[in-house]
Amino acid sequence: MSRYLSEAYQSLEAYTPGEQPQDMQYVKLNTNESPYPPCPEVIEAAAREAGRLQLYSDPVCANVRDAIAGLYGVKRENVYVSNGSDDILNFAFMAFAGRGGRAYFPDISYGFYKVFGDLYGVDYTQIPLEADFTIDPEKYHHRDGMVVIANPNAPTGLTLTVDEIEGILRSNPDRVVLIDEAYVDFGAESCLPLTAKYDNLLVCQTFSKSRSMAGARLGFAIASAGLIADLDRIKYSTNPYNVNLMTCAAGAAAIKNNGYYMDNCRKIEATRAETTKRLEALGFTVLPSKANFIFAKSDRIGGGELYQELKKRGVLVRHFTAERIKDFNRITIGTPEQMDTLIQKIVEILEA
Amino acid sequence: MSRYLSEAYQSLEAYTPGEQPQDMQYVKLNTNESPYPPCPEVIEAAAREAGRLQLYSDPVCANVRDAIAGLYGVKRENVYVSNGSDDILNFAFMAFAGRGGRAYFPDISYGFYKVFGDLYGVDYTQIPLEADFTIDPEKYHHRDGMVVIANPNAPTGLTLTVDEIEGILRSNPDRVVLIDEAYVDFGAESCLPLTAKYDNLLVCQTFSKSRSMAGARLGFAIASAGLIADLDRIKYSTNPYNVNLMTCAAGAAAIKNNGYYMDNCRKIEATRAETTKRLEALGFTVLPSKANFIFAKSDRIGGGELYQELKKRGVLVRHFTAERIKDFNRITIGTPEQMDTLIQKIVEILEA
Repeated sequence: MSRYLSEAYQSLEAYTPGEQPQDMQYVKLNTNESPYPPCPEVIEAAAREAGRLQLYSDPVCANVRDAIAGLYGVKRENVYVSNGSDDILNFAFMAFAGRGGRAYFPDISYGFYKVFGDLYGVDYTQIPLEADFTIDPEKYHHRDGMVVIANPNAPTGLTLTVDEIEGILRSNPDRVVLIDEAYVDFGAESCLPLTAKYDNLLVCQTFSKSRSMAGARLGFAIASAGLIADLDRIKYSTNPYNVNLMTCAAGAAAIKNNGYYMDNCRKIEATRAETTKRLEALGFTVLPSKANFIFAKSDRIGGGELYQELKKRGVLVRHFTAERIKDFNRITIGTPEQMDTLIQKIVEILEA
Repeated sequence: MSRYLSEAYQSLEAYTPGEQPQDMQYVKLNTNESPYPPCPEVIEAAAREAGRLQLYSDPVCANVRDAIAGLYGVKRENVYVSNGSDDILNFAFMAFAGRGGRAYFPDISYGFYKVFGDLYGVDYTQIPLEADFTIDPEKYHHRDGMVVIANPNAPTGLTLTVDEIEGILRSNPDRVVLIDEAYVDFGAESCLPLTAKYDNLLVCQTFSKSRSMAGARLGFAIASAGLIADLDRIKYSTNPYNVNLMTCAAGAAAIKNNGYYMDNCRKIEATRAETTKRLEALGFTVLPSKANFIFAKSDRIGGGELYQELKKRGVLVRHFTAERIKDFNRITIGTPEQMDTLIQKIVEILEA
């Protein structure tokens, strides 16, 4: 930190991304990437744009917004795209809760919500999850600030139903309800259709998980035209060309080849079911996940120790030190072969 | 605008990027893009990364930061990279002038400074340029806030000397001095070497202009390790993976092929000299530019009218309506062939 940094930011605790160690080749099950590459059409679209990088990208991002709008049956004015969905969360906290506004989100959820809250001076409340790690939707009714819920939640993988989310929307007509659906494509129910009915609903999704584009940085939001216009206003006041040329083209191509990605999601769901069964057979408690990861704890080894022992053996998973979840690890669902390696290493560790 | 937007942002006037009309093929001399494509190694590097987009980019951006550090003889800790240099300006206003801090910049300069000032509630002062559109460096001495100067300035193309900038640095030891060198590679003198001596100097450059990568979104800053750490703190609190995988690789490749780009800059300087001469012969006043654009006014036709007439004829230039500069147009230097078209259309218009 320099002596020039504004006081407001001197105590910021930034988000810690999952580690990316370079010392050896790991089986990487720690950042919820897809184990499957983009489809050939996406690779070709990005490579084609690389030849004309001297030109700015379209600030409107018409190609990818129109593709998304077509897939989900909405209009371009209902779609916002950005440099990863973190960018959307960032802008949403700024626009709808910034400068002393209020926000409500679970105490155990995506760690970035708290960071954004601190960054923008939001008066936020972290509502504890229930004892079984579920969210009680009624605790988000009649709130005096923005409500933010990841559905499925991270790192638990647990979901609310669309009806439960509709209850939250109905009881907060004057507040934005942000539903972060980063992991929705792996078997959860999306509340996108509710955007037609509730002008306070902002649904945020990403190409990083189900669409194999974490490295391209592309997130999108679907909402009423008014909320999208607000996000656009912040975008045009910070970084109008926030999505690059290659990523716009890749995103449009990914939507046109949606079947490939949805097939991959079904494969990941099958691998998730199989992995859950095998871990349970080894004495693990595994929360019933609808995401591309599982949250699991052993009856024989602590979460931190298992994480360390797996890392020594070349398998990376994600461990959080917060008291309520320190016995667990979040394990990304990779290919069946990667999960075989995981199970084999866990057996090795438990037998040692 | 929705009824949910925080009051703080309801009166924001966002930046207006140069128009990108899609109705016909224009000779595009309005957004200061390079007329030359990236070199083949850059295209290959980006295309190669497109094949593994399922993986997150390195949040440290080690490959491109190390390449930049090597070229300019600094360390990785002195280099920050971001999703376009607008992102750096954004973070700098937030970090060093946000929440009621002060900033000083010229009244005629990059239009985004004012937008950032409004966005973060900065108490900013726009210092008028002199009658000849130059900056008087002494007007930036002993200021009680961040000083921001584009050098060369936009849209004038005029420069301060490194000595003049050093005077500003010396007289503001407790304030950040941000020198925006977006256009420095076209014949101006960079103050990068001063970063070794002044820990309050933040120099910002971009790959969008001299390195033909506007569409890839890559900006960088060089400064003392403390200032870079401050920018990183904001980055990790907003969007840790802000630079995508393809752009990181393309940027590193561009630096490794620096000669190609510097040759292009020399070509653009030659075209600039030739275009200036031809416009002067047609009765234009052309400010002596060190950028990849010129700022020119005719003695026979108003700036707005010339812009409109050129647009009708398929040539886009940039016109600003502010009183002091409304007789001028900012014209990007393209290929010699593009400039032939420009001159031919201007002759047509003047003879009509």
